[in-house]
Amino acid sequence: MSTVQLSAGEESDPRVRAVFDDIRATRKTDFINNLWRYLAFDPSLLEDTWAEVKAVMATPSELDPMVKEMLYLAVSIANSCSYCVHSHTAAAKAKGMTAGQHAEVLRIVSLAAKTNHLLNGLQIPVDPVFDQESAL
Amino acid sequence: MSTVQLSAGEESDPRVRAVFDDIRATRKTDFINNLWRYLAFDPSLLEDTWAEVKAVMATPSELDPMVKEMLYLAVSIANSCSYCVHSHTAAAKAKGMTAGQHAEVLRIVSLAAKTNHLLNGLQIPVDPVFDQESAL
Amino acid sequence: MSTVQLSAGEESDPRVRAVFDDIRATRKTDFINNLWRYLAFDPSLLEDTWAEVKAVMATPSELDPMVKEMLYLAVSIANSCSYCVHSHTAAAKAKGMTAGQHAEVLRIVSLAAKTNHLLNGLQIPVDPVFDQESAL
Amino acid sequence: MSTVQLSAGEESDPRVRAVFDDIRATRKTDFINNLWRYLAFDPSLLEDTWAEVKAVMATPSELDPMVKEMLYLAVSIANSCSYCVHSHTAAAKAKGMTAGQHAEVLRIVSLAAKTNHLLNGLQIPVDPVFDQESAL
Amino acid sequence: MSTVQLSAGEESDPRVRAVFDDIRATRKTDFINNLWRYLAFDPSLLEDTWAEVKAVMATPSELDPMVKEMLYLAVSIANSCSYCVHSHTAAAKAKGMTAGQHAEVLRIVSLAAKTNHLLNGLQIPVDPVFDQESAL
Amino acid sequence: MSTVQLSAGEESDPRVRAVFDDIRATRKTDFINNLWRYLAFDPSLLEDTWAEVKAVMATPSELDPMVKEMLYLAVSIANSCSYCVHSHTAAAKAKGMTAGQHAEVLRIVSLAAKTNHLLNGLQIPVDPVFDQESAL
Repeated sequence: MSTVQLSAGEESDPRVRAVFDDIRATRKTDFINNLWRYLAFDPSLLEDTWAEVKAVMATPSELDPMVKEMLYLAVSIANSCSYCVHSHTAAAKAKGMTAGQHAEVLRIVSLAAKTNHLLNGLQIPVDPVFDQESAL
Repeated sequence: MSTVQLSAGEESDPRVRAVFDDIRATRKTDFINNLWRYLAFDPSLLEDTWAEVKAVMATPSELDPMVKEMLYLAVSIANSCSYCVHSHTAAAKAKGMTAGQHAEVLRIVSLAAKTNHLLNGLQIPVDPVFDQESAL
Repeated sequence: MSTVQLSAGEESDPRVRAVFDDIRATRKTDFINNLWRYLAFDPSLLEDTWAEVKAVMATPSELDPMVKEMLYLAVSIANSCSYCVHSHTAAAKAKGMTAGQHAEVLRIVSLAAKTNHLLNGLQIPVDPVFDQESAL
Repeated sequence: MSTVQLSAGEESDPRVRAVFDDIRATRKTDFINNLWRYLAFDPSLLEDTWAEVKAVMATPSELDPMVKEMLYLAVSIANSCSYCVHSHTAAAKAKGMTAGQHAEVLRIVSLAAKTNHLLNGLQIPVDPVFDQESAL
Repeated sequence: MSTVQLSAGEESDPRVRAVFDDIRATRKTDFINNLWRYLAFDPSLLEDTWAEVKAVMATPSELDPMVKEMLYLAVSIANSCSYCVHSHTAAAKAKGMTAGQHAEVLRIVSLAAKTNHLLNGLQIPVDPVFDQESAL
Repeated sequence: MSTVQLSAGEESDPRVRAVFDDIRATRKTDFINNLWRYLAFDPSLLEDTWAEVKAVMATPSELDPMVKEMLYLAVSIANSCSYCVHSHTAAAKAKGMTAGQHAEVLRIVSLAAKTNHLLNGLQIPVDPVFDQESAL
């Protein structure tokens, strides 16, 4: 069930095909997950979304690839995106996350949510020492 | 401005004093940030919250301390907790997060939010391959 | 699966029947979607909810009906309400939203979420020029 | 700082004056808090919002008035509405909430947020026994 | 479908068995719902989560058990946790919540969400009288 | 107060200067709001964010510019981003939103939040007729 139609012959569109080919080459697998297949309903949105995800997540950077997927997963849990939780848990595992590390991520995410709500309930003033501008 | 009263003589309560002493010893600093000072309105809530934060965040585990603070920060941003964003940005920096890594965390968190909303709008089915139960 | 029971003979209750008749007359269709059928578990809640939705969404006002459904959809995506995303995507399409406009709504909603998270992470001060009170 | 202008002579509008008079009579106080004063920028929105809040919160019902304010507070914390957290903490206290009960509400709210995030991370199937429709 | 594997022989682990036995004794039922069965993938996380839920929710305190479940439910709705909404609706009903009270909880929760969004849109200043610190 | 430092001589960086010049040319004003000034702490993040905002929001498309700002505002309210609510209310007003239309946007956004929470509490099945895939 979806709010957009999945095209049967999605790869007959050369723009869609080009993105799918790049996903396969980047990930070294033939598998294209549903996010990209459904996004093909709008080739421009598909191209831009993939280009950004590739640039941020599949390009070497200062942070470890597994850590990046863990951060993505943490936000997806907080935003209650079921598809994203599934896909980024799988991605983090594919990049080396063990069951123990998965449990630890869940522990930190849920503890953060706990104190986020506690603080939102207390409405206390931010300590001046936390202000980065004060370093000027 | 807060929804609870900050006690002037908070450390005169031995339970509060014990927690503050442990925070100082654990963090090797005399500074007690507002979260703990305001939580002193209920010593039991203060004790339990500190015990859990210490166990999860200040105890060696499978994940790197800086990564743990980054995960905490990511969730705090998603839950729109202003105090938490300030305190955990500071904590991540104290554990080594550079300005470049900070920018990268913000990039990943905001990209995740973007695709979280995109997926919540598309409502597409989760790929069966993401199901961990299928491994049974 | 639901947290309330769907009554088999829902329209035998005259209050429920009256609401359903008004929904049919307002929308010019015999179809009653699940929201209203399940809300019938509490006729008073059903009556009040329909009265408000009709007043805000089905009464001519300053905003275009399709735009109003797009706004409803945008909030439903942000609040991660699966049922609401489905029903208001359908409603916006029924009021003329094309596939291209649908893609543009998704683009704006997801970009907004991205910068919402970026700003929640930066915690920067609001520019005084944005304050409407300063116009006094 | 606000996104709407606060009118200096707000009570010169008879519709605004009528709502303010009813708020004063209902609450048995001369004080009008900012929510209502700023909502006066649109008398119709002011009237409808007050009418609904009065009907739900200030009319005797099956739930205890203090419990109703606690529920309102819990949702306001979860939705990160700073003004609402302040006003409904004050309202709950005015209806009898003690400091101990306040701490307990914060404990439950933050624990709920913790397991909400844990479950959103686990994505486990709902037990069939929880389905109210199965009782049909 | 889940992000963790459900173990077939979960109770063969003595730590898991001990938690399950305590759940059964505390709730006076043989039924173990999926939350606990899936959490068994990490016995330590299972133990800690159950210990906290038991201490907060299954131990006599200042608030009525049904009210506590209603608060838990309210937060779970706001955080869009489908499993939690189902389990805590069932728990509140098991502790005496009638259909009429259920409807009233939904009415308050949804009204709170409405004014939370209204206030987040207005961005009005908090009345000084709501500040608990001013009582010092 | 912010989590990043605002550079005193921000425009001395040619990459920052180029973005600021483009913002001024695009918006036909010398004013640079804080979002862009603080983002200058990371020129690459500044460039990418502005490029995307310009492409989506400042380029003619199928939707009316004022409607696009209203959608951005609606999401910002739901995500509780104070800065974003202020800036996009101002932007929508700059593009023609009247006080009456502003009130109507707030009405729709808050009603949507109300039924979002109601539906998240009811957990009812999505009507098959809403499924766009069924059109295949």
